[in-house]
Amino acid sequence: MSTLAWIAVDWGTSSLRIWGLDKDANTVFEATSNEGMASIACAADFETTLLSHIETCLTATDPVTVVCCGMVGAKQGWHDAGYQSLPINPLARQQVVRVPATDSRLQVWVVPGLCQRQPADVMRGEETQIAGVLAQMANQQAFSGMVCLPGTHSKWALCDAGEVTQFATFMTGEMFALLAKQSVLRFSVADSDWDAEIFKAAVKEAFAQPASISNLLFSVRATDVLGQAAGAFGKARLSGLLIGLELAGVLVLSEINQVHLVGGSELAELYQQACDALLIDTQVHSGETCVLAGLKAAYKQIVS
Amino acid sequence: MSTLAWIAVDWGTSSLRIWGLDKDANTVFEATSNEGMASIACAADFETTLLSHIETCLTATDPVTVVCCGMVGAKQGWHDAGYQSLPINPLARQQVVRVPATDSRLQVWVVPGLCQRQPADVMRGEETQIAGVLAQMANQQAFSGMVCLPGTHSKWALCDAGEVTQFATFMTGEMFALLAKQSVLRFSVADSDWDAEIFKAAVKEAFAQPASISNLLFSVRATDVLGQAAGAFGKARLSGLLIGLELAGVLVLSEINQVHLVGGSELAELYQQACDALLIDTQVHSGETCVLAGLKAAYKQIVS
Repeated sequence: MSTLAWIAVDWGTSSLRIWGLDKDANTVFEATSNEGMASIACAADFETTLLSHIETCLTATDPVTVVCCGMVGAKQGWHDAGYQSLPINPLARQQVVRVPATDSRLQVWVVPGLCQRQPADVMRGEETQIAGVLAQMANQQAFSGMVCLPGTHSKWALCDAGEVTQFATFMTGEMFALLAKQSVLRFSVADSDWDAEIFKAAVKEAFAQPASISNLLFSVRATDVLGQAAGAFGKARLSGLLIGLELAGVLVLSEINQVHLVGGSELAELYQQACDALLIDTQVHSGETCVLAGLKAAYKQIVS
Repeated sequence: MSTLAWIAVDWGTSSLRIWGLDKDANTVFEATSNEGMASIACAADFETTLLSHIETCLTATDPVTVVCCGMVGAKQGWHDAGYQSLPINPLARQQVVRVPATDSRLQVWVVPGLCQRQPADVMRGEETQIAGVLAQMANQQAFSGMVCLPGTHSKWALCDAGEVTQFATFMTGEMFALLAKQSVLRFSVADSDWDAEIFKAAVKEAFAQPASISNLLFSVRATDVLGQAAGAFGKARLSGLLIGLELAGVLVLSEINQVHLVGGSELAELYQQACDALLIDTQVHSGETCVLAGLKAAYKQIVS
């Protein structure tokens, strides 16, 4: 077994992933937990939680460097790492922030988020995945294109010459969850089957007619009430309408012919299908590979 | 005190309004309660609830006619009154449905809803208010125009030559409630002040850029996180964005220069302000007058 050199941590709202890495960034150990920020009572508990997963690997003499990204660096997280402004190359200029850990065996750093002043927008955690996407490019300094990071709040980042120049957050995932579980649509969405064709048709419909979205959403219910829903495909239709709306919104930001999609989730697969339906080419990058590559870039800056 | 001739009832999801009327439709008594459909356990309880409000006015010898509109006529209400198809003149052709009441002192009728097959849409209760709007027109048979009925699910009905030819439901109110109370926006909306200018600016912004709505919604939070929110006006901005989006959607349905707005609620006032911001002329009709005029038209058909 190779020797632990440093620890990479992706600490989001609802989950925690830890990788112990050797000097060549090969994985020595790995841990996954649902101890996300939302389940942690106070700032001090972040350190205790982290220690519970890595304590057996620590030595008294040689402090280990821990590089974290995600909501752990939010105001309500372990330590406020702030935001860096655009334009930025998140691969080269992540100004990691030192976290005041109490255990002397730890040297903890957090990657800051990104912010955009006009129009106002913020991200935290996704900047590390974007850095990871850039790290995988043959010519990182010259990379221009659109990166999509699906999630509860999906992010679309426009890159130009290796820098993030603009980005936008869409509340699609959160809107889906609220509408599917708590609105009048829940009667037509709960336990409904999935149909890829219904999904794609809904993507195209909302993309073509985004202004009508709050009417199209009600149609999920009305179609069902009038017995016109061929099978119970409310979920596919609701999901397709909201993702189609998002893609129409992205088009306002920039033309999109090709998207670098950070994948690995069920949701990312839906985004890929939605792009397919709209004839947008997708190049899928593994989410895990991206976050690790981004954290590795941050680690390099710390030790260099 | 004049003699009770018949009883008008507006029975919605969350409220119940009862008017005892004489032969000239003057109010003999009036009752308001929060015993809406949502608070009633089973179909039989509708009759008990109604009786609790009107029993003292009933006589053993002479059954009274009760004309109801609203969710009371839904499948999950007192008695399923079904839907009538478009095009329809809801003032002249409301095919009221007899409800099998057990108390012989009651003759209860319910006004059916309206349905549209393509695109699928339904309304229940609002058709009676639309009939009321028509009843107030100098030339009902020739009336053409757009009627707007704000609510949790707002309805826009396009009338032509005295008939409803098309309508659309928008989930604006329900989306506002979910986003304001349960999404990440709640931190920037709760206890926020109201500012009419912020509201109007947001109406215009979403109206001009409806495709970006799920990004604009997130901006309510991002502006606040970045300390750019001048005062805490998240509520006005959220409300304005969603109503502006709705108006953009109405524009897909039809050009709108003038709107007949069924008013009397705080929400209706916001719709009026939103129309003002977009230079759409509004003519406001009292909601109570409309529902009573609509129920009166239904009563006329029963007794004629």
